[in-house]
Amino acid sequence: MDLNALRTAHPDHWSKATAIRALTLDAVAEANSGHSGMPMGMADVATVLFEKHLKFDAADPLWPDRDRFILSAGHGSMLLYSILHLVGDAQFPIEEIKNFRQMGARTAGHPENFLADAVETTTGPLGQGIANSVGFAMAEEIQRAHYGAKVVDHHTYVIAGDGCLMEGVSQEAITLAGRHQLSKLIVLWDNNNITIDGPVTLSDSTDQVARFKAAGWHTIEIDGHNPNEIDAALTEARKSDQPTMIACKTHIALGHAAQDTSKGHGALTDADQMAAAKAAYGWTTGPFEVPGDVKSAWEEIGKRGASERAAWEERFDKMPRSKRETFNRALAFETPKKLSATIKAFKKQMSEAAPKLATRASSEKVLEVLNPILPETVGGSADLTGSNNTKTGDLGVFDTDNRGGRYVYWGVREHGMAAAMNGMALHGGIRPYGGTFMCFTDYARPSMRLAALMKIPTVFVMTHDSIGLGEDGPTHQPVEHLAISRATPNTYVFRPADTIETAESWEIAFSSKNTPSVLSLTRQGLPTVRTEHKNTNMVEKGAYVLADAEGKRQVILIATGSEVSVALAARDLLQAEGIGVRVVSMPCMELFAAQDEAYRKRVLPGGAVRVGVEAGVRQGWDRWLFGERGKFGKAAFVGMDRFGASAPAEELFEKFGITAEGVAAAAKDLL
Amino acid sequence: MDLNALRTAHPDHWSKATAIRALTLDAVAEANSGHSGMPMGMADVATVLFEKHLKFDAADPLWPDRDRFILSAGHGSMLLYSILHLVGDAQFPIEEIKNFRQMGARTAGHPENFLADAVETTTGPLGQGIANSVGFAMAEEIQRAHYGAKVVDHHTYVIAGDGCLMEGVSQEAITLAGRHQLSKLIVLWDNNNITIDGPVTLSDSTDQVARFKAAGWHTIEIDGHNPNEIDAALTEARKSDQPTMIACKTHIALGHAAQDTSKGHGALTDADQMAAAKAAYGWTTGPFEVPGDVKSAWEEIGKRGASERAAWEERFDKMPRSKRETFNRALAFETPKKLSATIKAFKKQMSEAAPKLATRASSEKVLEVLNPILPETVGGSADLTGSNNTKTGDLGVFDTDNRGGRYVYWGVREHGMAAAMNGMALHGGIRPYGGTFMCFTDYARPSMRLAALMKIPTVFVMTHDSIGLGEDGPTHQPVEHLAISRATPNTYVFRPADTIETAESWEIAFSSKNTPSVLSLTRQGLPTVRTEHKNTNMVEKGAYVLADAEGKRQVILIATGSEVSVALAARDLLQAEGIGVRVVSMPCMELFAAQDEAYRKRVLPGGAVRVGVEAGVRQGWDRWLFGERGKFGKAAFVGMDRFGASAPAEELFEKFGITAEGVAAAAKDLL
Repeated sequence: MDLNALRTAHPDHWSKATAIRALTLDAVAEANSGHSGMPMGMADVATVLFEKHLKFDAADPLWPDRDRFILSAGHGSMLLYSILHLVGDAQFPIEEIKNFRQMGARTAGHPENFLADAVETTTGPLGQGIANSVGFAMAEEIQRAHYGAKVVDHHTYVIAGDGCLMEGVSQEAITLAGRHQLSKLIVLWDNNNITIDGPVTLSDSTDQVARFKAAGWHTIEIDGHNPNEIDAALTEARKSDQPTMIACKTHIALGHAAQDTSKGHGALTDADQMAAAKAAYGWTTGPFEVPGDVKSAWEEIGKRGASERAAWEERFDKMPRSKRETFNRALAFETPKKLSATIKAFKKQMSEAAPKLATRASSEKVLEVLNPILPETVGGSADLTGSNNTKTGDLGVFDTDNRGGRYVYWGVREHGMAAAMNGMALHGGIRPYGGTFMCFTDYARPSMRLAALMKIPTVFVMTHDSIGLGEDGPTHQPVEHLAISRATPNTYVFRPADTIETAESWEIAFSSKNTPSVLSLTRQGLPTVRTEHKNTNMVEKGAYVLADAEGKRQVILIATGSEVSVALAARDLLQAEGIGVRVVSMPCMELFAAQDEAYRKRVLPGGAVRVGVEAGVRQGWDRWLFGERGKFGKAAFVGMDRFGASAPAEELFEKFGITAEGVAAAAKDLL
Repeated sequence: MDLNALRTAHPDHWSKATAIRALTLDAVAEANSGHSGMPMGMADVATVLFEKHLKFDAADPLWPDRDRFILSAGHGSMLLYSILHLVGDAQFPIEEIKNFRQMGARTAGHPENFLADAVETTTGPLGQGIANSVGFAMAEEIQRAHYGAKVVDHHTYVIAGDGCLMEGVSQEAITLAGRHQLSKLIVLWDNNNITIDGPVTLSDSTDQVARFKAAGWHTIEIDGHNPNEIDAALTEARKSDQPTMIACKTHIALGHAAQDTSKGHGALTDADQMAAAKAAYGWTTGPFEVPGDVKSAWEEIGKRGASERAAWEERFDKMPRSKRETFNRALAFETPKKLSATIKAFKKQMSEAAPKLATRASSEKVLEVLNPILPETVGGSADLTGSNNTKTGDLGVFDTDNRGGRYVYWGVREHGMAAAMNGMALHGGIRPYGGTFMCFTDYARPSMRLAALMKIPTVFVMTHDSIGLGEDGPTHQPVEHLAISRATPNTYVFRPADTIETAESWEIAFSSKNTPSVLSLTRQGLPTVRTEHKNTNMVEKGAYVLADAEGKRQVILIATGSEVSVALAARDLLQAEGIGVRVVSMPCMELFAAQDEAYRKRVLPGGAVRVGVEAGVRQGWDRWLFGERGKFGKAAFVGMDRFGASAPAEELFEKFGITAEGVAAAAKDLL
């Protein structure tokens, strides 16, 4: 690259873009760790985007109608941090840049949404940002339909790398965006032909432009170092009625000895090479120093949106009060006052009616009463609507001609659904929930983990939650998936036993602000076990005594979900023999673990043998069987220690011994 | 559809294809469960494939040079089962068809490779089959390069549905196949425009033909009910020098009242509608009855490959004996005799040299000595070759001009890599291993689970296995991933503490026939803890006493991987205070659980407090802390109960208290 020519042709642009490059080199060198090349390659694109197109106000990074900027290639975090510092974001003083990748800094190795207001989403695991962005763009469409374009009218811009586009989830994302013609979604592809192992061509020969076209996108190809081309492309993209992918041909680590090599992807810390690069840029200030005029020019960019924001606030204030309240309430993930009363009334009705229902059907009943009072919910399913029971009558279907529709047919895209739901939650104003078979937790895992890490309340509705699904067999029968979700920090895993517990689980999931929920629901019908109405949300306690021992308490059976009724039946068998049995329902281990010790001890006192019952693996159960003051050595677990099989459900429960008789026998063995 | 016209135009073909449709209807009706529509829609395509193109011999479904047939749309299992019955596969008498989806039948809800020889892979979770198929086709190329086309020369045929193509993993698969120009891979897309939720257009508008072209595929579009077009397309595909996708326009549930509807996807059990469909087909025999001439015609198809197989056997027998032996040994997943001696010599050398190495670097050292004696290994990495240390000098790189290369640059495709590795193992003759960061277990999960379910010895090399990776931060720091893999049945999770344990772990992984392995390896350097050479493979015992207490044993520290040296240092601290401490290294919980009780008791006797140490979540540990005769209530765990952070590694271990001092303090708290 002839840097001199670039610099001479566009001197003002050049100095602004070079500030990003210089700060990146300095921060990575100081940390002796990080990724220099991507910010150096995409500095021109990002500069033009922030200078001329992105609607934002550095003074208020949370302005609800800002354009969203998503750095899907999250390893290039210094691109974002440099810009946030340059535009004057108060959370990014130069000290933060100097502390890049150090303990407690906002400038984490990869951008983390919960560390800084201007970081829209947590990226780093490749493909997640671009898949989140689909949810951001859908959320904008839905909110615009609900509140009008005067209040909601913004774009979602994404910078994605070759790695993002190689990840499978990117295909789920771009085909969704193409299907729904999300014209306000604009992806800038950092087309630098370099990955860690070498040139992209080592492992990929995809014609990305043709691929995006095949998915229904508008595409533009530009020189990613030419500010005029970048500007024109962004202008064209904003006018398109399709989502747009701009292929930006760039040089990774522009101007550095490592330019255009895979070495350029990583940490460029050699002092001589850094000096040479800065000299080639014509950059003469010391480390972490930005010339005053360049900093001022960037700060002007940071203020560019201030008047637009003020005008927006005026328009917002003119909305009817109730709409404003709903808008703000949803943005804060707060619940309407009537949620609690609605749940209580529903529970009362159901404990009286005591229906025999699969909990997936119970869940639908709950959603039928909650969706109407929570206009911010958006439901969906990854092509299992009738099986996941996620669609209720009032939602309407999100489509090109019904942007206000609150139900999404996600197609066979579990991962894309999970990532886009995260995007909706991150965008704000939407409470997303979506379903698939629990076994396909596996497909959605990367985004489910990120929901937990990002502290957002996405709800994953996982039906067909055990061998109880029967004939579809072991590929579809979750065995380890409860353990997987429970192993994940900051995740509620609910396994309700009946309609009442299902309602209580939903109440918690829809009231959560910072924690995602997994609802583990059955395919098969279950009796109502909570026939005595209580206003208290018992699931909130995590576990509670459902039926106490008659006579001396010799056995405690602890069960979840579909196995609670098995435990109750086992109790009948044992009590008939004069053995006193307490049954504890444990719909949420995480919430039980969060109770104080006194409560936990009341529910699980010593002096009795314990049997855990769950149609899944034992992993995670020993804490409750032994670790919490169980009588030493006197505990057993009735569950699965292998994959399931294809056969009718009742036969499978027999085969694997998850029956009242099996549980009673396990308890008697211990006595 | 005018069935009469189809029937009249190709009467012989029609009756053969209709036999599939009729058996499908009967089996699903008998099971009252299953998927009728796909086999009914794809019967014509499958009939022509088996009749005129697929190289197979029903008498020997394991013939190594057979063409592979992969039903990626696994829910249409009755398509495969019907054909296997019709061609006379001895494992599929009519009783199996009648027992569809019943306990113990080979005819499971979804095809399971371990239930029947002719089932090449387990499908059902969508997209897996097509992604496996890339591994099958690569394995064929590699084996052909190694053994010559006289012995290895076959195609891989796949039937994939709309769901398979919507799943992200399909993109990783098809771009890999395109990049490597896997011309012997032929995908038949069941283009029926129906998914469970409705028409495909409800959720997807992708131009699939253009998409495959963009990935470097040859494409052909045909009427999937016209046998001439099907035949011509398959002929053309076999001649192509690119992988070929044949878009077969079909009608789901052809001829049934539910034709072309999402209802047609599921179980069509209505007796009247079944009778009407059979009448429309001109099918007059009773349930499960195939007219003699039709059955004979199919049986002839089943014998079609017999002479070809005989000729192949002659050619095979002419290969040099050593080549034949290697071929057969690799096919049986057997190890060469010298493996054990090689490992022992390596261990002896390393226990003397006692290097300080990251276990990922130890792993590379092991591979350097094992790859040369195991010509069947194929290594690779998902774009982290230098970080995963998976490439050794002698492998050569698999490419279009080096088909014998044994190293694959998988690109940023963790899921596609895992699925393709499974395909290689299933193909036979290849022992695949591949690396990524342990955190991206999440991306590979669906295929990792299937490796376990399918009982194949794929090896997943997961480096950067804790907060010890440092600055990349919580998105890249596994916390729950050991628990996730351990929760999965039939999976070895190895977390070696040093070079010696790493060598022992590899020995087990490369000797395994039916169990996949996860190697959890560090980024950071670790001291050698096994400096006294032992011939015995101690990892095989799962856990063992690494350092015993001096004086009265008051504490047992149990640790894995990078925390073993932390435990040893904690032991020093405690012994200095006169507290007797045993350190148990537990590199593989699954293998320890498989030891007899006497051994487990010897390693973990009662009468001492226990502290578990692992830089991951506690889930899975309580069994060893309490469940196995620990002193009640006297145990603790030092590990992670939240996500990590971005900072230098040593600071993170300090912050989270995973230090010798922290462990010693936890032990003293218990005394």
